[in-house]
Amino acid sequence: MTAGAFSPTGLFVCFEGGEGGGKSTQSGLLREWLEAEGHTVVLTRQPGGTSVGQRIREIVLSPETGELSNRTEVLLYAADKAEHVDTVVLPALARGEVVITDRYVDSALAYQGAGRTEAVAEVEQVNRWATRDLRPHLTVVLDLEPQAGLGRFEERDRIEGESLEFHQRVRQAFLDMAAADPDHYLVLDARATIASIHEQIRVRVASLLVTA
Amino acid sequence: MTAGAFSPTGLFVCFEGGEGGGKSTQSGLLREWLEAEGHTVVLTRQPGGTSVGQRIREIVLSPETGELSNRTEVLLYAADKAEHVDTVVLPALARGEVVITDRYVDSALAYQGAGRTEAVAEVEQVNRWATRDLRPHLTVVLDLEPQAGLGRFEERDRIEGESLEFHQRVRQAFLDMAAADPDHYLVLDARATIASIHEQIRVRVASLLVTA
Repeated sequence: MTAGAFSPTGLFVCFEGGEGGGKSTQSGLLREWLEAEGHTVVLTRQPGGTSVGQRIREIVLSPETGELSNRTEVLLYAADKAEHVDTVVLPALARGEVVITDRYVDSALAYQGAGRTEAVAEVEQVNRWATRDLRPHLTVVLDLEPQAGLGRFEERDRIEGESLEFHQRVRQAFLDMAAADPDHYLVLDARATIASIHEQIRVRVASLLVTA
Repeated sequence: MTAGAFSPTGLFVCFEGGEGGGKSTQSGLLREWLEAEGHTVVLTRQPGGTSVGQRIREIVLSPETGELSNRTEVLLYAADKAEHVDTVVLPALARGEVVITDRYVDSALAYQGAGRTEAVAEVEQVNRWATRDLRPHLTVVLDLEPQAGLGRFEERDRIEGESLEFHQRVRQAFLDMAAADPDHYLVLDARATIASIHEQIRVRVASLLVTA
């Protein structure tokens, strides 16, 4: 595996973290601010940011799917990412736009690798191949204790319905990835106010726009 | 990549080759004969041998899907194989049964690797991981010139609608894989009569049942 590729044009920002940390709220606020600053923004999510991805999302998240082999789940998520990178992310970055994604490769490593304890190195290899090893310039981790983030049990989907220990391993995996590469991560306490979290993200993204 | 694993119990037979070579006819005849001999047989196909696989099959083969990134296609087929191996093939082999599959990893290498000219080594790596590197005891290649096997153009699905050159590369890939490992392959001219092809398959499979 190579060290990873960063697009020389555009800006690629990813939101990661467990359930209920405010990823969609914060990614929406970031988009609004960037657009007000005159940038063209593509806001997308994984799984499900393409029409094929939408159908894959239905398979992996529907409780009706029942048990799914771990490797099947890894490969379905990776297929969504491959389509997403080739048809949405790379074309927008090539046009010099800002791409904000709600979840990316780190979610695969955290949920399928650490969460389901599938061999992380192999999950990573599949995902890096799927995404042509394209890395975000910045990954924002909205960190929260799993107990605080999960909704009521009867409303959870296949992934949210996993055990608390599963979600604790997931949380730790995000923190470990961030700690290993601080230049490309921003970890924020998701219990802070929406406005203060947005402000911290804005400051960090602004510094990247100056560099770019 | 390891040298591949052969199940110590049961018998795993795969049918491969281009379109129109009679894979479903011959796999059905082989099943009938094996059942008459007292064996329990699981006859399946890829993509689509599981309920998840059926939904994946709809995505990859429907003309409505339109263009699909090559890697997306590789990963979707591999997801089908992972589910298939874990939930159908391995449990049956563990019970000592005979599993006959219509297409397997070789189809991925031939269609996505050689056909679409995606890097074969990477396609193989993804597929070997998906299938836990489980190999068939015997792969029967029903060999036919592409011109003879393809149906009328207006009835073709996404894969069948590819160019003649594509299907020629696919055919050559099957022949090359068989030539490299004759102990585990049987290449037959698909233009022979149904009865004579079945007879040749039966003889070879019978020899494996004696060994097993």
